[in-house]
Amino acid sequence: MLASRTEHLPAFVSADAIAFSEMVKQHQQKICKALEQADGGAIFHADPWERPQGGGGETRVIQHGKLLEKGGVNRSDVWGELPAFMQLEHRTGNDRFFATGLSIVIHPNHPFVPIIHMNIRYFETNQGKYWFGGGIDLTPAYINKEDARRFHSGIKTICDAYDAQFYNTFSKQAEHYFYLPNRGETRGIGGIFFDHLHAENAGIDKSKLHTFCSDLADFFPVVYLELMEKNKRIPFNESNSKWQRVRRGRYAEFNLLYDRGTKFGLETNGRTESILMSLPPLAEWVYQHEPALGSAEYETLQMLKNNPSWI
Amino acid sequence: MLASRTEHLPAFVSADAIAFSEMVKQHQQKICKALEQADGGAIFHADPWERPQGGGGETRVIQHGKLLEKGGVNRSDVWGELPAFMQLEHRTGNDRFFATGLSIVIHPNHPFVPIIHMNIRYFETNQGKYWFGGGIDLTPAYINKEDARRFHSGIKTICDAYDAQFYNTFSKQAEHYFYLPNRGETRGIGGIFFDHLHAENAGIDKSKLHTFCSDLADFFPVVYLELMEKNKRIPFNESNSKWQRVRRGRYAEFNLLYDRGTKFGLETNGRTESILMSLPPLAEWVYQHEPALGSAEYETLQMLKNNPSWI
Repeated sequence: MLASRTEHLPAFVSADAIAFSEMVKQHQQKICKALEQADGGAIFHADPWERPQGGGGETRVIQHGKLLEKGGVNRSDVWGELPAFMQLEHRTGNDRFFATGLSIVIHPNHPFVPIIHMNIRYFETNQGKYWFGGGIDLTPAYINKEDARRFHSGIKTICDAYDAQFYNTFSKQAEHYFYLPNRGETRGIGGIFFDHLHAENAGIDKSKLHTFCSDLADFFPVVYLELMEKNKRIPFNESNSKWQRVRRGRYAEFNLLYDRGTKFGLETNGRTESILMSLPPLAEWVYQHEPALGSAEYETLQMLKNNPSWI
Repeated sequence: MLASRTEHLPAFVSADAIAFSEMVKQHQQKICKALEQADGGAIFHADPWERPQGGGGETRVIQHGKLLEKGGVNRSDVWGELPAFMQLEHRTGNDRFFATGLSIVIHPNHPFVPIIHMNIRYFETNQGKYWFGGGIDLTPAYINKEDARRFHSGIKTICDAYDAQFYNTFSKQAEHYFYLPNRGETRGIGGIFFDHLHAENAGIDKSKLHTFCSDLADFFPVVYLELMEKNKRIPFNESNSKWQRVRRGRYAEFNLLYDRGTKFGLETNGRTESILMSLPPLAEWVYQHEPALGSAEYETLQMLKNNPSWI
């Protein structure tokens, strides 16, 4: 989309920003194709949209797949006046921003296949500030320790290629970010979360931060297709599906009560259907749902409360 | 509960506050009994709870009834240090509060029986400030105009017995309060909502404000049992239930994104299960769900967007 609209971009937008946007576009294409093939049922429906204040995006949604009950792989390039609530050290009164990113949430129908979320984004202002942000995290209704270790070690391998501290720092940030204080539980088994990352605070070149984000986007279909394949034939019953719906209720609580991206999107009049695409297809709230001591559901809940280290 | 705990109440708590708490207790008892009889299936389960910082309450929940899929009739008497985020004209550094109230949300399984919400509360401080708050509102998945008029005119009759402006003022406040800006829709057909009401700004005696709240609590079972009886035998299909789940999704969005009571409760470390009892038993999010032009679902959605006056 950006390619055909480059002529409308504000003059301050850097070549790095355009390169990030192009990278995002390629990942969106590749990831949708990989997910469609793995599902073997539904295909993504593309909804291009424009933002009156500047820019737009393309929301791609899959629904009612053989395995993928609901999922979105969305990208956007937006620009305009810097919102007043954004803190910057020096404001000039004429601050403008450009932001581009890819955002993915997948809700599988199978209770033993985890929900996954991935996001990479690049932000810059007309005053020469920029930063990268993003992350990837997994939310299983049933935590499989082997899968959790595989997921985290895959992320760590990517992080370690850039900086020995990235994994430690960013996985701790994910622990803090994906936490429901009202429940005393993490949303899932975490992963990494980072924001406001630039060459100076990261201690590595800007171009490396671009490829770090790109590597995460490459990792996403690899690890998720593996988890889908590995778990999709596990037999399950209605009681497993009920637990999945209860956990999806927690996912909805997190996204609506605490998620900064959701709040930012709604407060800046973002496209509601693209923002709330992250909500589960079907969620359940049971008063004081407490799994039986020693059950698989109980074990998962204990891990969400105690939040063990996976590596 | 309060009766057995009156000895623990802070000394500043007024006789009016205790009377309100006792009134709430009686309504809780009476309303639960009326709902149980009307349902003819499930009964309420009572959960008394204590608040470490002062006070407690009793959550009563009904689940899996013949008609009442999930509902809560909750009361609480809480006290302690006035939270820092509460704005008062004069703070002394030793501000304490007492709050007592009744809060009800009912989610019926039948898509033609509306969700209902009712709340009355009394708040006071050790500096002599006090106010009443509350409201009642209806959220039908399918708006029945006759029911909407009956509901609003019943409320207006109660309001008019106290002040000719109450209905106009409080129904407008409900319109503004129960609104989802992200959807451009009201949550339901409204009702009334009021807060910070005291003798001076209401222009009527404090004791009248007490009976106004009590009258609303009396009205609740009358009108809701009538709406249950009237609509519970309407035949419905899976497509009606799906629409009900989609509307319940909007209900969850409102309560988690915008409801002040939910935010206040979670931010002051309230009892999560009592606060989130309001969430629907089963909710659905469909990407860009758009009812067919001219369908009953479409007609309801138009009314939620255009928000007609019901009297």
